[in-house]
Amino acid sequence: MSIIEIIRKKQQKEELTKSEIEYFVTNYTKGEIADYQAAALIMAIYLNGMTNEEITNLTIAMANSGETLDLSSLGTVIDKHSTGGVGDKVTLILMPVVAALGIPVAKMSGRGLGFTGGTVDKLESIKGYKTNLSIEEMIQNVKKVGISLISQTANLAPADKKLYALRDVTSCTDSIPLIASSIMSKKIAAGANKIVLDVTYGSGAFMKTKEDAEKLAETMKQIGELANRETICIITDMDQPLGYSIGNSLEVIEAIEALKGNMKKDVKHVVLTLGAEMLKLAGKGEDISKNEEMILQVIKNGKALEKFKQLVQNQGGDVSYIENTEMFGKAKYIVPVYSPISKNKINKLNAEIIGRASCMLGAGREKKDDKIDMAAGIVLNRKKGDELKKGDILAYIHTNRKDKIEEAEKQIILAYTN
Amino acid sequence: MSIIEIIRKKQQKEELTKSEIEYFVTNYTKGEIADYQAAALIMAIYLNGMTNEEITNLTIAMANSGETLDLSSLGTVIDKHSTGGVGDKVTLILMPVVAALGIPVAKMSGRGLGFTGGTVDKLESIKGYKTNLSIEEMIQNVKKVGISLISQTANLAPADKKLYALRDVTSCTDSIPLIASSIMSKKIAAGANKIVLDVTYGSGAFMKTKEDAEKLAETMKQIGELANRETICIITDMDQPLGYSIGNSLEVIEAIEALKGNMKKDVKHVVLTLGAEMLKLAGKGEDISKNEEMILQVIKNGKALEKFKQLVQNQGGDVSYIENTEMFGKAKYIVPVYSPISKNKINKLNAEIIGRASCMLGAGREKKDDKIDMAAGIVLNRKKGDELKKGDILAYIHTNRKDKIEEAEKQIILAYTN
Repeated sequence: MSIIEIIRKKQQKEELTKSEIEYFVTNYTKGEIADYQAAALIMAIYLNGMTNEEITNLTIAMANSGETLDLSSLGTVIDKHSTGGVGDKVTLILMPVVAALGIPVAKMSGRGLGFTGGTVDKLESIKGYKTNLSIEEMIQNVKKVGISLISQTANLAPADKKLYALRDVTSCTDSIPLIASSIMSKKIAAGANKIVLDVTYGSGAFMKTKEDAEKLAETMKQIGELANRETICIITDMDQPLGYSIGNSLEVIEAIEALKGNMKKDVKHVVLTLGAEMLKLAGKGEDISKNEEMILQVIKNGKALEKFKQLVQNQGGDVSYIENTEMFGKAKYIVPVYSPISKNKINKLNAEIIGRASCMLGAGREKKDDKIDMAAGIVLNRKKGDELKKGDILAYIHTNRKDKIEEAEKQIILAYTN
Repeated sequence: MSIIEIIRKKQQKEELTKSEIEYFVTNYTKGEIADYQAAALIMAIYLNGMTNEEITNLTIAMANSGETLDLSSLGTVIDKHSTGGVGDKVTLILMPVVAALGIPVAKMSGRGLGFTGGTVDKLESIKGYKTNLSIEEMIQNVKKVGISLISQTANLAPADKKLYALRDVTSCTDSIPLIASSIMSKKIAAGANKIVLDVTYGSGAFMKTKEDAEKLAETMKQIGELANRETICIITDMDQPLGYSIGNSLEVIEAIEALKGNMKKDVKHVVLTLGAEMLKLAGKGEDISKNEEMILQVIKNGKALEKFKQLVQNQGGDVSYIENTEMFGKAKYIVPVYSPISKNKINKLNAEIIGRASCMLGAGREKKDDKIDMAAGIVLNRKKGDELKKGDILAYIHTNRKDKIEEAEKQIILAYTN
């Protein structure tokens, strides 16, 4: 077996065998296959595609390329993943909800990069909250309070890390076989038995159309089936930001408000849909509408908020932030952005533009080592479907960077109009 | 402009502009574009193809990536190139012929690698012959005796060298746009005004079928037209070795015999066809059969052999080798290979197998730095179409490697039968 023969086969539209895929992943991870050979192969995969069996073999090989977590002492662990969005604070709301309903939550999340945020950064806006725990500590936390949310400390799926970086510089990011195997390999390595996926589409997502999101969802479902990890996907419109707040502490505040019962309509839809599927996977009930009822119930009776407090306290965070969100630090400049036009009905609100503007205001990282300003971001005041009069406030800029305000105003107006 | 955008365009089947192709070639030559990005691009080219205009722009950009020779002081220079074969000694015969007919011959040739030989190695089997001359010396030689054959000393088309090596390790060698631009870029950089190409097909060639050879020929003709270098291609069957001798001094001896009037039928066909086209390109005559007559004439009257002697003498070689080919060193072992079977008519003689066997006997290089044994090789005694009786001599092995004889015998028998 040689990498040249493997490239050859995919180039000639032949199907790769399990052992050929394992040979590639193992030797590429070790550095024994060169980046230029991997680049040739991924371009051939991009252009000639892969069967579901090939994608599953690639997924499993990548999952096995590094550490794999054993969470079996916790029973059935259900992981949740979103393919990316702007203002997406669903994990912060949904995880305490399902934990309050008795499903163990042991989840590693990522940090934000580019125009999308990361759950770990958001949690760190709560004073004292420690995300950098070991796997053993995470498991102990789940045993104690039923939930732990930490940052990715383990060396999960290093083959995926290398391939992801390579796809980025060879124009091969938007390939369904490569996206699907990348996501699923990390979930499998992270120890999930069952997986619920929120596959997003629109201006703020990887997939620009609903059709592509459906294709990606179908592929991941098939991988889940072949890899013995029951997988459910829901498709979510991410053409405008989710909810009203974008930025780290701003999103945590919106999540806390949601757990207190004040949940925005679009956020509620995603929380209920994903949550009902998770309950079903966990064997808590087959009837989706009854499951949704159960979710609304633990929010209404305060148990979900209580679970969130336990999570925060247990990981060293200051619970008074949850009780009183005025504790979160505020940006020096909070500036309203006024609409220069009138519209019967707002018909666009570009999520990517809002995400990038928020990033520019200090809420995100352009590069891996950039510092994040926890208080920075954007709070929307109008969303799609709303009526708009000239002079209405579209959104509020929150920033400590005075010099970025003017450009952010322009971008926000552009997001609503262009 | 960025390499990622350029890869993107080719991946999406869009046509690359001249400046995009120049950007890629220039920056890849400088090392500012990574091998993995070039690998992704060439796989996209392999799978999505290129228009003739793109191929021409790639050819010219690669030709301009290093030194380009100015041979204008010699008038119209016609270069000849073959896409590779086994036992191909045509350059050694044809170049003295056309020089004897008044066409200036200033040609740089390569060394052998793998199962195909190189003209430079062959010439060096003549004692004293210097191939390592400067461009200025080559030009002076042509002015003095009308012909000079040297090794490639100049840094011609370095972009092609890098890409060629990359294609080799990424399974992208057999791409018509990439082969055509590689060949034509070197010819243009080497200063040719007009080009005659021998495009070979069959077991001993890059192109395995006549159809592919025709496609490659048509592409190179188009490049020639767009690049203002009149180009003529002939298609040659290289399914069996050309002529009867394979190996360095063995081929030189066959070439000298040909110049003395004893030219084998298949060699004669190629020499006459290519030569007649060269005479036409040089304005020596429009009528192909008359041109062929002229060629036979300079062989018959000894002027072509005389020109070869002038070439050898002028570059320091010992002319007594030409006068008496017994001067060439002989291999220690000359072993006949007998046919184990009878056949009404030999219907195959695999050129690649014979080439590899010859290489194993010492005539070629497996790696760039291997030493060549000038006397080693194979002399065929039967060719396709011949009758064969069990016990007939198929060929003679010439070698100094006693331990390789048995394996070479097996391979030679295989070449005739498999």
